[in-house]
Amino acid sequence: MARRASRAKGKPASRRIRILVTGGTFDKEYNEIRGELFFKQSHVAEMLALGRSKLEVTIQTLMMIDSLEMTDADRTRIVEACRRAREERIIITHGTDTMEITARTLAAALQGKTVILTGAMVPYKFGSSDGLFNLGSALAFVQTLPPGVYIAMNGRCFPANRVRKNRDAGIFEGDAHA
Amino acid sequence: MARRASRAKGKPASRRIRILVTGGTFDKEYNEIRGELFFKQSHVAEMLALGRSKLEVTIQTLMMIDSLEMTDADRTRIVEACRRAREERIIITHGTDTMEITARTLAAALQGKTVILTGAMVPYKFGSSDGLFNLGSALAFVQTLPPGVYIAMNGRCFPANRVRKNRDAGIFEGDAHA
Amino acid sequence: MARRASRAKGKPASRRIRILVTGGTFDKEYNEIRGELFFKQSHVAEMLALGRSKLEVTIQTLMMIDSLEMTDADRTRIVEACRRAREERIIITHGTDTMEITARTLAAALQGKTVILTGAMVPYKFGSSDGLFNLGSALAFVQTLPPGVYIAMNGRCFPANRVRKNRDAGIFEGDAHA
Amino acid sequence: MARRASRAKGKPASRRIRILVTGGTFDKEYNEIRGELFFKQSHVAEMLALGRSKLEVTIQTLMMIDSLEMTDADRTRIVEACRRAREERIIITHGTDTMEITARTLAAALQGKTVILTGAMVPYKFGSSDGLFNLGSALAFVQTLPPGVYIAMNGRCFPANRVRKNRDAGIFEGDAHA
Repeated sequence: MARRASRAKGKPASRRIRILVTGGTFDKEYNEIRGELFFKQSHVAEMLALGRSKLEVTIQTLMMIDSLEMTDADRTRIVEACRRAREERIIITHGTDTMEITARTLAAALQGKTVILTGAMVPYKFGSSDGLFNLGSALAFVQTLPPGVYIAMNGRCFPANRVRKNRDAGIFEGDAHA
Repeated sequence: MARRASRAKGKPASRRIRILVTGGTFDKEYNEIRGELFFKQSHVAEMLALGRSKLEVTIQTLMMIDSLEMTDADRTRIVEACRRAREERIIITHGTDTMEITARTLAAALQGKTVILTGAMVPYKFGSSDGLFNLGSALAFVQTLPPGVYIAMNGRCFPANRVRKNRDAGIFEGDAHA
Repeated sequence: MARRASRAKGKPASRRIRILVTGGTFDKEYNEIRGELFFKQSHVAEMLALGRSKLEVTIQTLMMIDSLEMTDADRTRIVEACRRAREERIIITHGTDTMEITARTLAAALQGKTVILTGAMVPYKFGSSDGLFNLGSALAFVQTLPPGVYIAMNGRCFPANRVRKNRDAGIFEGDAHA
Repeated sequence: MARRASRAKGKPASRRIRILVTGGTFDKEYNEIRGELFFKQSHVAEMLALGRSKLEVTIQTLMMIDSLEMTDADRTRIVEACRRAREERIIITHGTDTMEITARTLAAALQGKTVILTGAMVPYKFGSSDGLFNLGSALAFVQTLPPGVYIAMNGRCFPANRVRKNRDAGIFEGDAHA
């Protein structure tokens, strides 16, 4: 009964989307005093505003790290956050270097939710970022694909166990979803 | 046999995407001599490059007009272009003012193809455009939704007969796809 | 005595710069609901921040209009604002279409101050504006040129009575200052 | 006679400006494959085009390095390039970390020319660069200041022997020119 009442107030849980922020190139900024790239805070809310998004989205920052520094403990935290989320539709922003490892970890540990990992090759704050394009596609894929774990990059979407990053070309390859 | 051979060389026809360009705010530019907005050429190819898209896409410019000036004859040309397209997955870039009219015209005239209309509230060439976000989401929706005609704006996707533009707020409303 | 006391508090009056805002392409924005260019508020403060300017500047908005609509009464207000300013160094942001008329009006009415009119061919908020470049050059010219009225555009600076806008090319021509 | 003939063809030598490129943050780019900042080629020509500059400028790339790596030999090359230049007005784009050292080296070795060193705190290719503002001001200062060596940053211009970079604040301080 409580649940039905709760649903009556808003949209059903299945429509809501949770975005888990873990850092990655997506959110890197330029420190003009030190001349280095660093993390301050996530730009996901700003990007949703730029895209005039009207989706019901909850943003949760789990960590702000380069994915080369992501540990097993960090991945466990990501799995737990996906499990605990009320939402059945989850996007994870993530560095591209180890995105496929996190995707496989999630695929092995999680069931019944649609999880899309996405990121960017160029920081959102720099002029020529692919971040807004990727976020737009990830939000569409997360609304339409059946439960499973996927990587959305380069306009395509790959199941977690059929994708790898081509490090020389900077693109993701594998069997796209369809 | 010929067809099978052809398919063996590349991806099946169902994977390819056609983008039909009709103009709209998406592609407007600023004429610095006259101080007016105008159309020159489409920015869709540039946007796909910025998004590092690796999808197989054919871009076809049908017209470059403000959608307030779109006539019945123009809409007939769009329907014909969708029919003639080898692709089963089609994106149409379109001004937002009459996007819902074109969507309904297409829905009544077309079957067996997934068609997504999208556009922008701010020109791509201006700093704060939603165009790249919308293009990213449209490309994802067109790969995943069943045949039908849809409008993808604001991160959401609406069937042609259940959507209208809220002109005061500048957003699209209706029953989202799911 | 009063003057010396006043100077003791800050920098001498001759170092301070006043920026008078009148509108022009510089400050135009895109209304995404109506699809039109319009004025909201000046971007000069934002531009000074972007340029990491450390100059002592006072910004005063006189009007926000297209310079084609500027009347004799408006120009009288500009002359009066220049006269009343405590500063001997003044920049006026102005639409380019009638910039030379305002410059000549000021040259005939004002003495003992260095006044630089500047503007932009493309709004600052659009991606490809010359506004930041022009503001940077205007601030340098206003610090270094002797009293007089000048137009600073295209990296050059022209005395008020030796300049005209080439409307076909969208550039200012005449005898540069040196 | 030869000189007079040469002058008859174009503008006098004193009007022409030479821009010597040495690298610095100004020209750094983001390598999206390696996730690092690097140098490719100078953006000065692109910046002059964006500023709609109509000045007669010759761009000469001397080196493309971080100014922390600049050696005495590099500084000797810069002095020589200034001496050999036909132009009496020279801008040097330079990393900000050792800009004041190069400025003093030039001031001790060079006479009769107006030399302005400028740079940026944020790369031009990133969204929030001060580069275009600084280039605009440097071009104005170089046209108006008497012979000498100066640093133009933050809208201000300092003689070589009266300036230092405040590394904590990322700004230049000293006695401005006037």
